[in-house]
Amino acid sequence: MAQATDMPRNETGIDTALGILKQQFGERFQMGAAIREQHGHTTTWIRNQAPDAVVFARSTDDVAAVVKVCAAHKVPVIAFGTGTSLEGHVNAPAGGVSIDVTQMDAVVEVNAGDLDCRVQPGVTREALNTHLRDQGLFFPIDPGANASLGGMTATRASGTNAVRYGTMKDNVLAVEAVMADGTVIRTGARARKSSAGYDLTRLMVGSEGTLGVITEITLKLQGIPEAISSARCSFPSVEAACETVQSVIQYGLPVARIELLDAMVVRAVNGYAKLSLPETPMLLLEFHGSDAGVVEQTETFAALADENGGTDYQATTTMEERNKLWQARHDAYWAMLALRPGCKAVATDVCVPISRLAEAVGRANAKAAELDLIAPIVGHAGDGNFHASLLLDMDDADEVARAEDFISWLNELAISMEGTCTGEHGIGQGKRPYLVKELGAAVGVMGAIKQALDPDNIMNPGKILPESLA
Amino acid sequence: MAQATDMPRNETGIDTALGILKQQFGERFQMGAAIREQHGHTTTWIRNQAPDAVVFARSTDDVAAVVKVCAAHKVPVIAFGTGTSLEGHVNAPAGGVSIDVTQMDAVVEVNAGDLDCRVQPGVTREALNTHLRDQGLFFPIDPGANASLGGMTATRASGTNAVRYGTMKDNVLAVEAVMADGTVIRTGARARKSSAGYDLTRLMVGSEGTLGVITEITLKLQGIPEAISSARCSFPSVEAACETVQSVIQYGLPVARIELLDAMVVRAVNGYAKLSLPETPMLLLEFHGSDAGVVEQTETFAALADENGGTDYQATTTMEERNKLWQARHDAYWAMLALRPGCKAVATDVCVPISRLAEAVGRANAKAAELDLIAPIVGHAGDGNFHASLLLDMDDADEVARAEDFISWLNELAISMEGTCTGEHGIGQGKRPYLVKELGAAVGVMGAIKQALDPDNIMNPGKILPESLA
Repeated sequence: MAQATDMPRNETGIDTALGILKQQFGERFQMGAAIREQHGHTTTWIRNQAPDAVVFARSTDDVAAVVKVCAAHKVPVIAFGTGTSLEGHVNAPAGGVSIDVTQMDAVVEVNAGDLDCRVQPGVTREALNTHLRDQGLFFPIDPGANASLGGMTATRASGTNAVRYGTMKDNVLAVEAVMADGTVIRTGARARKSSAGYDLTRLMVGSEGTLGVITEITLKLQGIPEAISSARCSFPSVEAACETVQSVIQYGLPVARIELLDAMVVRAVNGYAKLSLPETPMLLLEFHGSDAGVVEQTETFAALADENGGTDYQATTTMEERNKLWQARHDAYWAMLALRPGCKAVATDVCVPISRLAEAVGRANAKAAELDLIAPIVGHAGDGNFHASLLLDMDDADEVARAEDFISWLNELAISMEGTCTGEHGIGQGKRPYLVKELGAAVGVMGAIKQALDPDNIMNPGKILPESLA
Repeated sequence: MAQATDMPRNETGIDTALGILKQQFGERFQMGAAIREQHGHTTTWIRNQAPDAVVFARSTDDVAAVVKVCAAHKVPVIAFGTGTSLEGHVNAPAGGVSIDVTQMDAVVEVNAGDLDCRVQPGVTREALNTHLRDQGLFFPIDPGANASLGGMTATRASGTNAVRYGTMKDNVLAVEAVMADGTVIRTGARARKSSAGYDLTRLMVGSEGTLGVITEITLKLQGIPEAISSARCSFPSVEAACETVQSVIQYGLPVARIELLDAMVVRAVNGYAKLSLPETPMLLLEFHGSDAGVVEQTETFAALADENGGTDYQATTTMEERNKLWQARHDAYWAMLALRPGCKAVATDVCVPISRLAEAVGRANAKAAELDLIAPIVGHAGDGNFHASLLLDMDDADEVARAEDFISWLNELAISMEGTCTGEHGIGQGKRPYLVKELGAAVGVMGAIKQALDPDNIMNPGKILPESLA
């Protein structure tokens, strides 16, 4: 694919840096082909560009040591968590060293009284939530994959809960990071808010490893709600479902999740999980609050759905029933794959103002049909964010080309609707062509920042910024 | 005061730029002493450093034109909204041109279906809320003063509602800004979330005019709640009040406001407004939600307050009663001034983790007594943010020196408690000494960004960054 072009390699620098790092890190320095490949991009259709070596870091000092060696010899540095990013973020187009942070997996401290914690970047969201459960706390961001919190921070991840709890941008209080010259900075402490200077926390969140390697994260936490209730509702059309979503948002109903499944996804789930859901667009919801509060929320939602032709409304508060209801959403990926055995699923990600969501999803459905593509759609509808998952026969070059056309068309559609080419997956390699279309001259400002903080372009080169700037 | 040191002036450049701007802007270019002084700092004790001229801009093009002239001749540019900032943000220590944006006061568009709007920077928060009221919408950030939204964005303002609705960082979707070379950028569109590149929106929010002049802001809006209820409760000690605040936050009670008034403030309010509130620490609250929801919230709060020895609990939902209850908070500034007729009130601003709030307020009370200073305290307690307002005889040099010691001590205390030297007022000139103490090497990264985006240091020089970097 065009998105993963190679960049010039600094062979001499790489050779020298690898020699030094092998000495420094011994067994924690690895160059085996399988390990290298596993630390390049392995999801979606973007081709794998493996790093030259992998260092397994155990501390901020380890990370700083690697960065200093790489800085001295102008060698690329790519941070690696779980490798679950979707736009080629961990590829090494100019070679270099992957810093694997999975062994930096300590929950450093939990301040239950302040609803915050500090974690190392290799802690996964599931590990963190397991750690927190006994204290009645949870971390709400759920991007689907059991991603590392370092990676989630670096890509500004979000997911199903963002409509209520925000994205990583809203839930990171501060980071510690190793910058391109090996300097370790901390962008804040534990105050809930601050007006002290430039918001470096938010600059690092979503910077995809291109400005520094995140070595610790201070996160906001939430109390586990007294009551959780789930619901589903079917609709005669995507428009009716999206109208309901808009009513929910305008009403200020504090839904914790409100997910849209288009008719094709529902059909896929029915086939996969032997369910008999009506094969029309569906909303899946979750409500958090007090016992009385969630009852009121479910009733209010039912009334709003009813006004828009909602049918087959079901709500429940028992965990078993809730899990059953949400199984449809969790199974969606596998269910979609089963629609076309042997296919590869390539998900693309856009986000539009909620008032444009119905039109965007409707036009995406029509465009896929026009291009003879299978592209079921799921959406974090409360944010106007949705993913079309193209089910592709990768041996069919014409189909792959049509899929590329579709993705290009969809990203431009979202931008034309005052939306964005990525709600949560990030730019990486795959979305670089759209960034300038979306933000124009502002990308030049990003380039100036990158140049100032990483003049030799060693921090995850070839990501986010267009080729002329990175 | 030491905070407003003069910087070298580029007399030749200033003369040339002023000549050009006078030609371009005619009557909208002003050099009268009174106007110039009014566009320097006029609040608090930081001395006035007037700009050399004021241009009244009416459009982004006007702002870009001024910046281009100033860039060509290396002349400082200082944006001016309402002049209500507290740390010398609008002062002109190296002279230059103040761009007054008060005539850029259009609400450009309101998208009720998406709960967002676009405004010019001179729109004040009260004007915006008046504009929105008929549509059942409001903008929640309330820093007290009727500040301009441009200024609120530039200083990352917040205030009483932040505990529920966040700060400007959370409520700005995008900005348009004129950068130091006159380039106009837009940092985003109207998507509720985005992972498209570096978060320039958050970089501009809180940059205090040092990176560019904000010429338009896209804001999130809220629906006016179905029900609003207010409450007050007295406590035997600051500790008891703060324990209650912590319980509220840990419980996840979605209070819209939770304000702490220390005993001295309550006494001041009693005297000023002829009330008979118990002269002990008090919490003032507001709850937003459905009719049933606010009843549940007030009851839950009452139970939590009761556990911590709260007394004289009063709650009400009628607007008249609510206004009466909140009058105490709104009058606090004037009431405090009346404690010591003829004095000047100088408010300082810190923010600490909520678990440290009681200790911080208690120690501040004790330190003020020790230094023989009158320093009543009000706090946005749900965020751990509080202000000590020093009531000073400005003719008493020793008292002024003790006040400076107190502020220095308090800022360092907040930093030592993993808090911040400013929760919402910003750094400006006054807090520059504390920024490095708080953020260390990260300030060097800020300096590198400033240098990259404004190499001639023309955008609001002498603010935020330490002298060595700005």
